Amino acid sequence: MEKLKKYVSVEDEDHFYHQGAVELLIFNFLLILTILTIWLFKNHRFRFLHETGGAMLYGLLMGLIIRYVTKSPDVESGTVYECEKLKSGPSTLLINITNQVYEYQYKREISHHNVNGHQGNAMLQKMTFDPSIFFNILLPPIIFHAGYSLKKRHFFRNLGSILTYAFLGTAISCFFLGLIMYGFVKAMVHIGQLKQWEFHFTDCLFFGSLMSATDPVTVLAIFHELNVDTDLYTLLFGESVLNDAVAIVLTHSISIYSPKENPNAFDAAAFFQSVGNFLGIFAGSFAMGSSYAVVTALISFMHLTKFTKLCEFPMLETGLFFLLSWSAFLSAEAAGLTGIVAVLFCGVTQAHYTYNNLSPDSKMRTKQLFEFMNFLAENVIFCYMGLALFTFQNHIFNPLFIFGALVAVFVARASNIYPLSFLLNLGRKQKIPRNFQHMMMFSGLRGAIAFALAIRDTDSQPKQMMFTTALLIVFFTVWVFGGGTTPMLTWLQIRLVLVGVDPDEDMKAKATSQSASNLDKNTTKTESAWLFRIWYGFDHKYLKPLLTHAGPPLTSTLPEWCNPVARLLTSPSAYGDQLKDGDTDYIINNDELTENYESSSHIPVPAQDSTGSIQTTSKEDIQEGDLGLGGYKLQLQHTGGQPQKNSLA
Amino acid sequence: MEKLKKYVSVEDEDHFYHQGAVELLIFNFLLILTILTIWLFKNHRFRFLHETGGAMLYGLLMGLIIRYVTKSPDVESGTVYECEKLKSGPSTLLINITNQVYEYQYKREISHHNVNGHQGNAMLQKMTFDPSIFFNILLPPIIFHAGYSLKKRHFFRNLGSILTYAFLGTAISCFFLGLIMYGFVKAMVHIGQLKQWEFHFTDCLFFGSLMSATDPVTVLAIFHELNVDTDLYTLLFGESVLNDAVAIVLTHSISIYSPKENPNAFDAAAFFQSVGNFLGIFAGSFAMGSSYAVVTALISFMHLTKFTKLCEFPMLETGLFFLLSWSAFLSAEAAGLTGIVAVLFCGVTQAHYTYNNLSPDSKMRTKQLFEFMNFLAENVIFCYMGLALFTFQNHIFNPLFIFGALVAVFVARASNIYPLSFLLNLGRKQKIPRNFQHMMMFSGLRGAIAFALAIRDTDSQPKQMMFTTALLIVFFTVWVFGGGTTPMLTWLQIRLVLVGVDPDEDMKAKATSQSASNLDKNTTKTESAWLFRIWYGFDHKYLKPLLTHAGPPLTSTLPEWCNPVARLLTSPSAYGDQLKDGDTDYIINNDELTENYESSSHIPVPAQDSTGSIQTTSKEDIQEGDLGLGGYKLQLQHTGGQPQKNSLA
Repeated sequence: MEKLKKYVSVEDEDHFYHQGAVELLIFNFLLILTILTIWLFKNHRFRFLHETGGAMLYGLLMGLIIRYVTKSPDVESGTVYECEKLKSGPSTLLINITNQVYEYQYKREISHHNVNGHQGNAMLQKMTFDPSIFFNILLPPIIFHAGYSLKKRHFFRNLGSILTYAFLGTAISCFFLGLIMYGFVKAMVHIGQLKQWEFHFTDCLFFGSLMSATDPVTVLAIFHELNVDTDLYTLLFGESVLNDAVAIVLTHSISIYSPKENPNAFDAAAFFQSVGNFLGIFAGSFAMGSSYAVVTALISFMHLTKFTKLCEFPMLETGLFFLLSWSAFLSAEAAGLTGIVAVLFCGVTQAHYTYNNLSPDSKMRTKQLFEFMNFLAENVIFCYMGLALFTFQNHIFNPLFIFGALVAVFVARASNIYPLSFLLNLGRKQKIPRNFQHMMMFSGLRGAIAFALAIRDTDSQPKQMMFTTALLIVFFTVWVFGGGTTPMLTWLQIRLVLVGVDPDEDMKAKATSQSASNLDKNTTKTESAWLFRIWYGFDHKYLKPLLTHAGPPLTSTLPEWCNPVARLLTSPSAYGDQLKDGDTDYIINNDELTENYESSSHIPVPAQDSTGSIQTTSKEDIQEGDLGLGGYKLQLQHTGGQPQKNSLA
Repeated sequence: MEKLKKYVSVEDEDHFYHQGAVELLIFNFLLILTILTIWLFKNHRFRFLHETGGAMLYGLLMGLIIRYVTKSPDVESGTVYECEKLKSGPSTLLINITNQVYEYQYKREISHHNVNGHQGNAMLQKMTFDPSIFFNILLPPIIFHAGYSLKKRHFFRNLGSILTYAFLGTAISCFFLGLIMYGFVKAMVHIGQLKQWEFHFTDCLFFGSLMSATDPVTVLAIFHELNVDTDLYTLLFGESVLNDAVAIVLTHSISIYSPKENPNAFDAAAFFQSVGNFLGIFAGSFAMGSSYAVVTALISFMHLTKFTKLCEFPMLETGLFFLLSWSAFLSAEAAGLTGIVAVLFCGVTQAHYTYNNLSPDSKMRTKQLFEFMNFLAENVIFCYMGLALFTFQNHIFNPLFIFGALVAVFVARASNIYPLSFLLNLGRKQKIPRNFQHMMMFSGLRGAIAFALAIRDTDSQPKQMMFTTALLIVFFTVWVFGGGTTPMLTWLQIRLVLVGVDPDEDMKAKATSQSASNLDKNTTKTESAWLFRIWYGFDHKYLKPLLTHAGPPLTSTLPEWCNPVARLLTSPSAYGDQLKDGDTDYIINNDELTENYESSSHIPVPAQDSTGSIQTTSKEDIQEGDLGLGGYKLQLQHTGGQPQKNSLA
């Protein structure tokens, strides 16, 4: 009794508080350790362990220590109290205990069989933080950064392929994974390895959808470092970014799929409702995200033209940019849509329009801010994954299930990449070569999204088993495949196949006078030209002039009768820009945004920019001319379609 | 009953979740509105409303709307349940309600008389966030940024005065405020305006200590914009930064002051224990903060010398810097010290040592990152203050008490500034003029710290009354005094008294060939020379060479027998720097760190730096020579003490 009284005293309140600090300190310590290790590795050009892998490793060790070294059983927790007077769970509960009123906050509903997990180590409980933190705090900056740093030119060039892999590929992967897992589960029940749980086909599909989100962060970091083929990079990056969005919405749609009668039987109505849900949520989130970005672009555009002193307040500009992007996430969540998807498309649109309106100082600030947030969030998630293996208290390890899942993940990835690549190659002028396909197959790592989706729902036993399995598959893929990227690239001879090169590489290539052959190769890459051409024309003629100070004035692109409106909306600077091709300046330079901590910045930035832009301008002009966009330029400049001349203009 | 059942359903869980998004969205909306308004104001050079004042105003309006427009009474909350089985309040409570187990998390203990406040609008409850958020999330970046952007040269020059105002001044202010309030409370009880609560003298002192934290953020922003005298700026800034730390520790010491017998009688033992507590916590926090900064400096220094590729990873460097600074806060909290004080001194030390070791890219990144975090946190706090007036549910408005507090605040400020200035002027060669004293008196705004200290404890009725009063005083001082800064400066003719000028201003002054008279004036400002000289000598000879790559090599400053150690610890670059005065380069340029969103950056940064550094170098060399530090330079350079020659070296 004496011991219990302690809770009421001041010291214990302090204790509650200080433990929060201790937990955060543990995370800080892990991250510092990770950074120092990676620093060392980078200095020795040791590429087998990326920071994410390192963070996971340190998390694992710390989890081990917390689990087996600290032991402070909390006597009271784990006991279920009956409160007959209560008929429901209110948001806050006031409880009178020995004449002291305590306030308790509603956390969640838990199943009866999980109650035992609450008994035991208080430290472990503290370290297991709320899954909603992933979705509301850690994932948004990662996803936004991905959208904001998308290599847009290459992305749009490969749009058709990327969309195919992301939508069709993820659906295929999800379905195959679900099917294989269902077969496995049935077989396991048959041989008695699994109790007769309620393991429906929808549960398997749920697992399939969450395991379909690829996260090749390790692979891409190495690609970037080694200057691997840009097309392969873009295909992988674009696929992984979009397929995260698809997998999140897919998982949500599957989890709310509720057939009326037998949950195992196929219910057409419920199925179509799920499909409708998927499309509705995806489209809604897309609209929400991009409309916030358009608002940001308009505000920064208005300020730029109306009040010329905008660039004097880069802090206000950065603040506005940050808050509006975050609002896109929150609005989508508040409206019952998917915030992560909204923030992804917000990022893409911000990079496409708003970025051009920002002052040079704000461009750098926003870039560095999101890069930093991405860096921290990513490492926290990977640290936490390592920790979770030991601190999460309801793990269900089933070796057969894990083995089955591993097999299913590979089969599903293969049945996504190879058939779709075959189909796409039928339509692509620039085929996706065999070794690229193998590399894409190999780069199907699972990471933050799969983990976050799995930890969101760990109430029932099947879900707990799925969570444990997902966690182990993440470990396996990040360490084994992530570590094996460099040998794999060498083995597949991809580093030697410099078909489309990075702008940086391009410069070097030009220096060694290989420019002519390079340009010829570039002109053959006109994939998904019709889709790109329609979008590009509309964007260039109407959206860019309206939202940025680039492109031709609206007065020349809109019909005659719109002239009064057009004149009002056109930036004065647009008239001046009429003769130069605005887009080459205003579409973000490929590497400007993705240039991260790996890149050496010995050369002062302005100098690099001025030399770089000349090269990229010439190159990009050629590509545009090649993509059938020279028509408009012909009209204005009378030089379009002649790449060499255009590049000199 | 039907209505209550709803809580269990899925929709309601969604509802719980979405409301979090809605609250954040409201804050985002308020901040966006604030930014847009301030943008407009800045463009029209309208200086009566600073962004903090604007944020507060918008918060107030939003609070009004939430309070009187949204009405969604939460039936269940506000009812106290008796749980006979429980003997204490465990950290998590599992409750079985109609066969569903719900998990509740311990939030706090509340007094019986506050239970009513819980009845009513659920939205209001949601908007009132946890006071610990202020201390753990919002204040640290603000305070760190203050420490990191301290104008060190001016700060150290006025160190004696600043320490006097901060320590002695805050103690005087706290004591007088407490005394006056105690008189007021006694009088109010006497005339029957106040019930006979337990309003002890310690409660009044508590109020005095929390109201002694000045926060002239508005004033300083205007000072910066108008280029007001640097000495006045430094005195005010230094005082407000340090006095926040003093007030926080003082409040803590007073709140744990517990005399054994009669709480109204003076208990010498308890008093000295409180004084000991104050000193211990302050010194401990100081040590914790600066030691983390020293570790950061050492790590970045080691990497710089041992692995030369450090500057290639500015992201890792920034991450390490951020995490170690945050760890200083968390470690202090975990050790039972005051995190805010630790983070303040961590910031000062980081700026003094680590900043010099960072790569140019990281210097800018850290600067901008903390500037941005400071900006957001500050505006969130001021928004929240506005909101709190309407959303906080246990306000106790007592006009007489509020009036008394206002009077007491001014009397206490006056009895701090004027007598201490008089005493300081006895010792200062460069006196603090009358109009400076009036301006310091006028600039005693109350802000974030006072509010955060007041909201931390609102359990008892006296504390609630104090909170309400503190909130209103913050409103009054920020709007009235903040808005009146520009007229007041004109009235006191301070803008015209350009005694010590800003480096920027200095350049202009030189352009109009007033340099000679300016320099003469600067040489007279040798206040607190002996304190500064001792510290500076030690810092320059031992700490700087050890922690940064500046200053003379340790081999020449340490005694002979230390040579092997010294050689090991000295950076190779230090030998090369021997002939040039390292400090002028490595003490942060005055405006480099504080250059914020107000500054116009039309001129490209490198160009500005190169022209600016010539001016500051010459000026600072002169000051150093004047402060008796020329002796060392004489020894090395044989030119010390001759300002004009030195500046050409």
